[in-house]
Amino acid sequence: MGNQKRSAPTIVVIFGASGDLTSRKLLPALYNLSLDKLLTDRLAVIGVDRTAKSDDDFRRLMRQAVDKYSRRGKADDAPWAAFAADLHTLSGDFNDDSLFKKLAEMIGDKKKEWGTEANIMFYLATPPSVMELVANGLCNAGLAADKARSRIVCEKPFGRDLDSARELNAKLTCVFDESQIFRIDHYLGKDTVQNILAFRFANSLMEPLWNRRYIDCVQITVAESVGVEHRGGYYDKSGALRDMIQNHLMQILCYVAMECPVSFNADEIRNKKVDVLQAIRPISEDQVHLSAARGQYDSGWVRGEQATAYCKERSVSPESNTETFAALRLQIDNWRWHDVPFYLRSGKRLPARVSEIVIQFRPVPHLAFPPDTVPDIQPNRIVLRIQPDEGIQVKIQAKQPGSPMRLQTVDMDFLYKEAFPRASEPEAYETLLLDVILGDATQFMRADQVEAAWSVVMPIISAWENVRPTDFPNYPAGSWGPDSAVMLLARDGRNWWVPDVQKGKPSDASP
Amino acid sequence: MGNQKRSAPTIVVIFGASGDLTSRKLLPALYNLSLDKLLTDRLAVIGVDRTAKSDDDFRRLMRQAVDKYSRRGKADDAPWAAFAADLHTLSGDFNDDSLFKKLAEMIGDKKKEWGTEANIMFYLATPPSVMELVANGLCNAGLAADKARSRIVCEKPFGRDLDSARELNAKLTCVFDESQIFRIDHYLGKDTVQNILAFRFANSLMEPLWNRRYIDCVQITVAESVGVEHRGGYYDKSGALRDMIQNHLMQILCYVAMECPVSFNADEIRNKKVDVLQAIRPISEDQVHLSAARGQYDSGWVRGEQATAYCKERSVSPESNTETFAALRLQIDNWRWHDVPFYLRSGKRLPARVSEIVIQFRPVPHLAFPPDTVPDIQPNRIVLRIQPDEGIQVKIQAKQPGSPMRLQTVDMDFLYKEAFPRASEPEAYETLLLDVILGDATQFMRADQVEAAWSVVMPIISAWENVRPTDFPNYPAGSWGPDSAVMLLARDGRNWWVPDVQKGKPSDASP
Repeated sequence: MGNQKRSAPTIVVIFGASGDLTSRKLLPALYNLSLDKLLTDRLAVIGVDRTAKSDDDFRRLMRQAVDKYSRRGKADDAPWAAFAADLHTLSGDFNDDSLFKKLAEMIGDKKKEWGTEANIMFYLATPPSVMELVANGLCNAGLAADKARSRIVCEKPFGRDLDSARELNAKLTCVFDESQIFRIDHYLGKDTVQNILAFRFANSLMEPLWNRRYIDCVQITVAESVGVEHRGGYYDKSGALRDMIQNHLMQILCYVAMECPVSFNADEIRNKKVDVLQAIRPISEDQVHLSAARGQYDSGWVRGEQATAYCKERSVSPESNTETFAALRLQIDNWRWHDVPFYLRSGKRLPARVSEIVIQFRPVPHLAFPPDTVPDIQPNRIVLRIQPDEGIQVKIQAKQPGSPMRLQTVDMDFLYKEAFPRASEPEAYETLLLDVILGDATQFMRADQVEAAWSVVMPIISAWENVRPTDFPNYPAGSWGPDSAVMLLARDGRNWWVPDVQKGKPSDASP
Repeated sequence: MGNQKRSAPTIVVIFGASGDLTSRKLLPALYNLSLDKLLTDRLAVIGVDRTAKSDDDFRRLMRQAVDKYSRRGKADDAPWAAFAADLHTLSGDFNDDSLFKKLAEMIGDKKKEWGTEANIMFYLATPPSVMELVANGLCNAGLAADKARSRIVCEKPFGRDLDSARELNAKLTCVFDESQIFRIDHYLGKDTVQNILAFRFANSLMEPLWNRRYIDCVQITVAESVGVEHRGGYYDKSGALRDMIQNHLMQILCYVAMECPVSFNADEIRNKKVDVLQAIRPISEDQVHLSAARGQYDSGWVRGEQATAYCKERSVSPESNTETFAALRLQIDNWRWHDVPFYLRSGKRLPARVSEIVIQFRPVPHLAFPPDTVPDIQPNRIVLRIQPDEGIQVKIQAKQPGSPMRLQTVDMDFLYKEAFPRASEPEAYETLLLDVILGDATQFMRADQVEAAWSVVMPIISAWENVRPTDFPNYPAGSWGPDSAVMLLARDGRNWWVPDVQKGKPSDASP
């Protein structure tokens, strides 16, 4: 972040190159970065997979992928040809050291061809189960040794609980330095998530208000209108808490709650984020029902279409106890946030696809206006909208035109698409891949971050595993989740803020 | 303000009924109030003038005036007929007690006809010189005696210096209680001016920031693109300081700087405003050059049209020393505003017609972002736009889309015309006449307010009268005023904020 230098010569090695992620995200992102002249001309991509494929086949498939998934649409021939010339393949068994030996030779040849050293990014677009295998293979072939130039990128899920995350971290750090490991959470690559830091720390207006004296509560919503789609098999073993809350929502919470960083040094930012996670008041297992709510969607109507119940989805067990909705009430035990609850919720089959953070302010201490001028006074709210309609809304009271004096809640709006109408926003993966190439780990999760985030949710995971839900399915598709999530706030005398989605175009893409 | 009750039966007596103000503002306002059902059906208007006119002639002229000047355009026949039925005339010499005796009879007859008591509003749409005359006439005829029901409305200018204002107040208060006197400043009737109070005191976001800890300076600009037009005779004896700064800008300053009122009681608000005026640090006459700047426009180009120099305008002395531009630097000596300068400026023949208040915040105390991410960091600013494009803008830093991190100043916008697209905003005179009829003096100037505002500008008036300007004309028409106004801020290391007028439709109406 903040780094303007163009990258050094770079070799990107993708393990799992025939997978969805490579086609949908990684190749379009690398291609767009090269179009934007953000990468050196010396970029080679090696797609590694179990099944053999010719370089030409790989190039053809990747061209199709870029044409289909790039934000810029179909690729032009000339720039594509230049980019594709250095796409290569390699196949073999991830168990077999000769695969990695071959890889080392390819990398060596490429560097010789270029006549320079190169940064090497190993991208593990593979299931977590093979991460260790690949890491060991790289180690044995001497490919992990260059601490400054070789980097490994790991996709979520990063473990499925605290113990498995610790184990995975231990194994990776046997082979790689922590500084070489880039644990990716694509939410952190979104412009509007990164803008939280700009909004808070580049504006003198915000910081004086950003604390318990003025803020009543914070609400973070990441809602999807889709169901599990083709991911039923994976999702049924995971659930909303593991799939969304432990990573995306917890990271957003860190950005909202962290103290001012001294600089944008990667470890400085990550230290401040870990501080937040460590300050979250532990939830005791017998109090989980007061701090968390779970739900599973029933059939219903979403955006005018009939939706199947979760337990009837493909690859989902008909007796599934997996939660498709989770809500948390967290307290942060520090001076800034004492007694300010943070409410988090995420779910599938909700009424709209919307991700937003609502900063709800305390009421005015004394209202000088006569009561009849303010029939429906609302607290001030700042809504940081991550998607759709990226931007910031401040909800304030203003005088209605005319006599007599009457106040009404109105919006002060900043919309990305109005402020930057011509910009085609880069995808999160573009931002994050560039960061890896430039060696900037700010937006990636350090081992202690991942573990701290797991620590927060572990009591909930245990309690939910120990006590089977008796009311599943407990919310109709197309609603804002189960009553228990409403209760979580009602006990505090509060309501969930209903996202203002009419401005947004209906969208069913996954977040 | 805040009063919803419909008015009691009301008789409006306008002195100077054949004047411009009656046609352009007063009658259209009364008619629109009656259309909006904000007045009782029992409303009579008596137009008093030196020259005789029949009731029918008066009605016909007033119909023409409403057709021409009402914000709603031409009047419909039926409602106009109902309204016009109680328009009457009376003529005579303001020196002659029999005029007032006749007036008292007409009022008595009307009340008898209605069979009720009535509120009487005496509106002095007359030069200041005859105010005393009319007041005495009303007194002698017993028309000032009903302290609860009879009210007098005085137009600006309210004196031409502190002494004359005191004298006028003394004369009026011989006859009327202060509670009966409504000194009108039409700027205070503007929705966006009244909204300053709503913005500050109905939003918990604002008050914590609204002080010297966070605010760097305040700038108030009331700019006109027109010249003196047909008012040269009057204006040449007045000038920008008397015509605009002493009243409109000083009142706006009070709204921006006042402490939180306990209630919206008229005297509570006015006490808080007087507190501000009394806290303004007196300018010593020999330091006026450091606290004030004056200008007179030369010929030039305004909005694509050639403009004559002030001293060549009709009814203006070719050797005129009258300032058509004035700028002040004021300090408020209290805990909230210590060391926060308030810069005020107003002038004619400036590049645009725009009235706005800029709250400029201090820079962030420590900028964690690397310097290359913020090539041009601007302080946060809140712009309260009174006209045109009424609304509020907050200028903040946001992240530009894409990598690497770069910040840019963007606007968070609240626009009245977007929030209330269907509302036809009532004119200031509608708001203020209704307030008088309802007996709400909040938006009117109390004697001590007027005198305190004169006290602030008196040292400047004296200094400018004692030392003739040597550089007049000193700014070309179509510029933002003389260099000396720039110097006023440059000495403090600041600049005038250039109003962002491209969004506004060019407009040459007077403010």
